[in-house]
Amino acid sequence: MVSVYITGVGMTKIDKHWDMTVSELASEALRIALNDAEIENVDAVFVGNMLSGIVNSQENLASLVVSYAGLYGTPAFKVEAACASGAAAIASAFISVKSGMFKNVAVVGVEKMSDETSVEGITKALATATDSEYEFYHGVSFTALNALIMQRYSYEFNVKPEDYGLWSIQMHKNATMNPYAQLRFEITMEKYLSSQWISKPIRFMDCSPVGDGAAALILSSKKPENRPIEIAGIGMATDKFQSFLREDLLTLAAAKMAAKRAYDMANIRPEDIDMVEVHDAFTIMGVLSLEALGLAEKGKGIELLKNGDIKPDGTIPTNLSGGLKARGHPVGATGVYQVAELALQLRGTPVGVKLDNPNIGVALNLGGLASNCYVTVLKGG
Amino acid sequence: MVSVYITGVGMTKIDKHWDMTVSELASEALRIALNDAEIENVDAVFVGNMLSGIVNSQENLASLVVSYAGLYGTPAFKVEAACASGAAAIASAFISVKSGMFKNVAVVGVEKMSDETSVEGITKALATATDSEYEFYHGVSFTALNALIMQRYSYEFNVKPEDYGLWSIQMHKNATMNPYAQLRFEITMEKYLSSQWISKPIRFMDCSPVGDGAAALILSSKKPENRPIEIAGIGMATDKFQSFLREDLLTLAAAKMAAKRAYDMANIRPEDIDMVEVHDAFTIMGVLSLEALGLAEKGKGIELLKNGDIKPDGTIPTNLSGGLKARGHPVGATGVYQVAELALQLRGTPVGVKLDNPNIGVALNLGGLASNCYVTVLKGG
Repeated sequence: MVSVYITGVGMTKIDKHWDMTVSELASEALRIALNDAEIENVDAVFVGNMLSGIVNSQENLASLVVSYAGLYGTPAFKVEAACASGAAAIASAFISVKSGMFKNVAVVGVEKMSDETSVEGITKALATATDSEYEFYHGVSFTALNALIMQRYSYEFNVKPEDYGLWSIQMHKNATMNPYAQLRFEITMEKYLSSQWISKPIRFMDCSPVGDGAAALILSSKKPENRPIEIAGIGMATDKFQSFLREDLLTLAAAKMAAKRAYDMANIRPEDIDMVEVHDAFTIMGVLSLEALGLAEKGKGIELLKNGDIKPDGTIPTNLSGGLKARGHPVGATGVYQVAELALQLRGTPVGVKLDNPNIGVALNLGGLASNCYVTVLKGG
Repeated sequence: MVSVYITGVGMTKIDKHWDMTVSELASEALRIALNDAEIENVDAVFVGNMLSGIVNSQENLASLVVSYAGLYGTPAFKVEAACASGAAAIASAFISVKSGMFKNVAVVGVEKMSDETSVEGITKALATATDSEYEFYHGVSFTALNALIMQRYSYEFNVKPEDYGLWSIQMHKNATMNPYAQLRFEITMEKYLSSQWISKPIRFMDCSPVGDGAAALILSSKKPENRPIEIAGIGMATDKFQSFLREDLLTLAAAKMAAKRAYDMANIRPEDIDMVEVHDAFTIMGVLSLEALGLAEKGKGIELLKNGDIKPDGTIPTNLSGGLKARGHPVGATGVYQVAELALQLRGTPVGVKLDNPNIGVALNLGGLASNCYVTVLKGG
């Protein structure tokens, strides 16, 4: 079977890009990745994006990005899976190379959230990741759903606010090293604990910020001679969509299933993993993600924070980029940033903290309330 | 290489479905297709949809549809390419079966346009298929862009209003036979010529209607014993996005390129084709589509109407379903309806006029101003 390698990486800094359109942001990341891969065109482009229709009044985004990038004629697909749109686009691109129909393809994750300037507006836009009819129309925002889960986790496993605070502090610390990160400053436990409630028990400092960004990858069936980085496994799964349908709110069932599928394809076990990028849109999702990836038992994810395991020199370095919390979370782009960061780390040229010869990196991207999940396993050469 | 067969088909009637959500419509078509294929689940679901974010306040649609259909765990992708979202989803599904990663997959095209009840609202939603920044923000709607092209075609090739009228008359006649069609009534030339201007020279009777609908297909790598229908070729291409960038407004360059790619894969020539479903969102696009498919020289597509070639008993039976004009055009679903209709015709159980043992059918689905085009070639067994 065909193997798939990452041969090019491109990123823009995550920020409020008032002077660029969503298509300009995307085509900039795409051009950087093409230059990095030293190729001029690809056989197809897969664009991951969630909100361009609602926030930028722009659908038909894939052919627009291709046209802006000057790649006339190239087939183009936009893939959407809420906050997992980026990883869904990577999975689609990966499958297309596996099919043998394409040899070199590009993935671009992009989101330009700042075109929506009101908090109410962006909250409503993000709430389209819930079941609009049976969740959001009744007043449950996305933050509120996460708050329900955090409340239950805290109760079941006796977790204190200062335990959660360790996540945010570490993410901000990691982000200071990453030139592409949105929030490049450290915070203290005092600042975490005094930050305002957004939806109790979620504090302001538990939330990822709103920002604009684009990241791109070139995937190829041709193995590079120098430091090949292989996408060794991809796992995809969906869950019962609505929170009220689930037997167990504290297990990300789709993420767990996706992880098993990805590990099986890559022929690895959780203990083989050298680093992870997980989906901490809110602190609680970071903790549950570690459990879903099999890095901690149920209810024990929080221990990885308390023991310092998630630090760059810990047992399972987590979100060296700063994570969604501090690198930023331009929603449809996030999954591509995660894999791009792991690829650069495996290449030996990370954007932040450098690990000592890592070999295996895993990214977990969650869509909606983890209703659509993607796990990507990278192996260094 | 793996071959891909259509083993199940499902459709809902195109209508204003006030009592159903976009997810309910989609899951209904999906259930019908699963029953038709006599299977209970698939390895992945690909949802084609353009407007659920803007019109239904619903993103993350793919995992929602899968959950509504009770297919817990199944990987799900939403694919968007404006009015070609349906065919883009078919192409994605086709590629995934070719990859060997999945054996049976479902495609669902769905659009619920009636949640937007104002003409201005739906016009703005559809205009997100243009370049919002450089086309729509300056007042150019989608209909206006098509009007520019129709005006130029009429001037260059001396086409009269009554020539165009033949299209609409034939489509309405075909739709009377199709129980799933939205507009099941005949019209006269007098009615065509007296219908109001929408954007001159486009008349009301040149426009496809606004409606809701969902269609689904099951694709499989396993050849059915009885009347196998193979997806023998798929071609995809993009064009310079904006009208003002194109050297020639009267050639659908991406459609032409997609057709060549699809014909090459299927190893056919235009003269082998027994029937087509083309993208007549407006009459002029129907005419240009016939030319792009190589069924007429440039400027001669209109002759196929005048000579009666597009009739069910003509040389190239066109849109036996009634086409976008009269079957209806629930935008993200249209590409799936087209292929579903061709498949049923090849199976010998068409939804409308029955042809005498057709063997090859071709569908052309256009996204935006034909900026993203998909051609699908079906072969009967």
